[in-house]
Amino acid sequence: MAVYTEVTDEDLSVFVATYEIGTVISCKGIAEGVENTNYLLQTTEGRFILTLYEKRVDASDLPFFLGLLDHLAEKKFPCPTPIHDKNKEALRRLNDRPAALVSFLDGMSVTKPRPKHCQYLGEMLAEMHLAALDFKMSRSNALDLQGWPALFESCRQNADTFQNGLEKEISQDLQELTDRWPGDLPTGVIHADLFPDNVFFLKDHVSGFIDFYFACNDILAYDLAICLNAWCFEPDGQFNITKARALTNGYQTRRKLDAEEVAALPVLCRGAAMRFLLTRLADWFAPIEGALVKPKDPSEYLNKLRFHRDVRGPQSYGVD
Amino acid sequence: MAVYTEVTDEDLSVFVATYEIGTVISCKGIAEGVENTNYLLQTTEGRFILTLYEKRVDASDLPFFLGLLDHLAEKKFPCPTPIHDKNKEALRRLNDRPAALVSFLDGMSVTKPRPKHCQYLGEMLAEMHLAALDFKMSRSNALDLQGWPALFESCRQNADTFQNGLEKEISQDLQELTDRWPGDLPTGVIHADLFPDNVFFLKDHVSGFIDFYFACNDILAYDLAICLNAWCFEPDGQFNITKARALTNGYQTRRKLDAEEVAALPVLCRGAAMRFLLTRLADWFAPIEGALVKPKDPSEYLNKLRFHRDVRGPQSYGVD
Repeated sequence: MAVYTEVTDEDLSVFVATYEIGTVISCKGIAEGVENTNYLLQTTEGRFILTLYEKRVDASDLPFFLGLLDHLAEKKFPCPTPIHDKNKEALRRLNDRPAALVSFLDGMSVTKPRPKHCQYLGEMLAEMHLAALDFKMSRSNALDLQGWPALFESCRQNADTFQNGLEKEISQDLQELTDRWPGDLPTGVIHADLFPDNVFFLKDHVSGFIDFYFACNDILAYDLAICLNAWCFEPDGQFNITKARALTNGYQTRRKLDAEEVAALPVLCRGAAMRFLLTRLADWFAPIEGALVKPKDPSEYLNKLRFHRDVRGPQSYGVD
Repeated sequence: MAVYTEVTDEDLSVFVATYEIGTVISCKGIAEGVENTNYLLQTTEGRFILTLYEKRVDASDLPFFLGLLDHLAEKKFPCPTPIHDKNKEALRRLNDRPAALVSFLDGMSVTKPRPKHCQYLGEMLAEMHLAALDFKMSRSNALDLQGWPALFESCRQNADTFQNGLEKEISQDLQELTDRWPGDLPTGVIHADLFPDNVFFLKDHVSGFIDFYFACNDILAYDLAICLNAWCFEPDGQFNITKARALTNGYQTRRKLDAEEVAALPVLCRGAAMRFLLTRLADWFAPIEGALVKPKDPSEYLNKLRFHRDVRGPQSYGVD
């Protein structure tokens, strides 16, 4: 959420000259994205986001992320479009870091999503899933069911410090999730981090998704589960079934969930809550060095985990 | 240098609707200005900077700062122009803070100023001084000769920790500055913080000055002295007389310095170095809480102070 790497005016001019985007008019470091350095660049030809990838992003993943954005943009899905330089390259280097230039996306994220935002989100999430079906590259999800035990080990000794009994609670949940995790649901490319921060709206319609740096191949309905967690709980911790219904209905207007996907929603939501509980717990006790944001409170996702553990079935999410 | 205060999309829409500037297209927190929260706001009508004034700015000074920008803009001096709301107000409140909207200024600051940048800077500095001569409001300089002793007291006990003998060195310099400070030079509104960060260039010409939050009434040539310190030393600590000559010559093409001002340049430069040494020393030992920037090393200005103490006369700054 801040500029990590300063780019000088001279280096920027040289860099921009390797593209066909005119000359620099202004360039401001912006507070967007926790992991990387982002600049809003205005040239004589338009507005762009310049990203310098900092340590936490694995450079070998960048061709997947940029290729995905290229693919989605080609399908007219609204997302930042990578700008290719005069040599047709999208992935570059600047200030000794991997760097890329993408188109600027109009719109703003909503702080308090209303049901209609959830519906539009659902529609666009399904559209993204469909648009990415024929994307040729793939990337496994490092933070999936198989990855959670290692993540838990990294913060296990602090769990009871955070809340008494938490170590045992997470252990049991991890075991149950392993036992019940669906093995045969439709998969594809998922965004995997579609929090309200990462969805822009303009005049109440989705103007685009951003921040694809967790995108990977996984169960499609798991992406919906991540959104149910991120969009449908109220600040007081209550689950808002009206929003959940709007989200799942919106999704199904574009891509119908099959019976197995519907039946799996409770365990997928529980897994999604576990994934964010674990990363937040790990960050809580080992904040990212140099990051200019406070770690997020893991309690929020612990409450969500407990909610999903106790739901009666998919009808709790407004799905019939 | 970062967003302190988050503004929600809803609050922003309500705020923007009180102006005649169209509707919000995007809004990004930007890393500009150390003291305040700044957003780059794009509306259907144009680009603006939205500033929320945080604790370190005295709200009672804001009418002076905004009035000065209004005055300068009316004189066609390039600077952010305050946007007035439908009730003709420039100073507003947002998120329980004083807030203002100003026009966006194209251009970029230069990291490594060259002599021609110094010349253009000098020209525009003089133009600013002339344009502000008939500005009716005034604000005293809290960080002037009279203010330095109190500032020194706030960090005096740490001076020798920073560098052995520094307490005595500063004490003696403060005494000499008091003894020699010129009493009768032309005064007016000065920017008082015109570092390279605060001057934008576009195609090598000055596109504007920003960040007027230290502006005050003081000796005009003292503003030039601040610039000689901020623009004419090389990163290795050497003073670059070519840049100094370009700066002072540029200034004099628009406003001729009189003999007393020229003669006073060494003591004014020494005072300017003292002012920034003292604030940096104070910040070094008591960093601003919540500020997302590292305190700047006071050594840089200690070296500058020593340089000016030893110059032979104004000819050392390229002024004949």
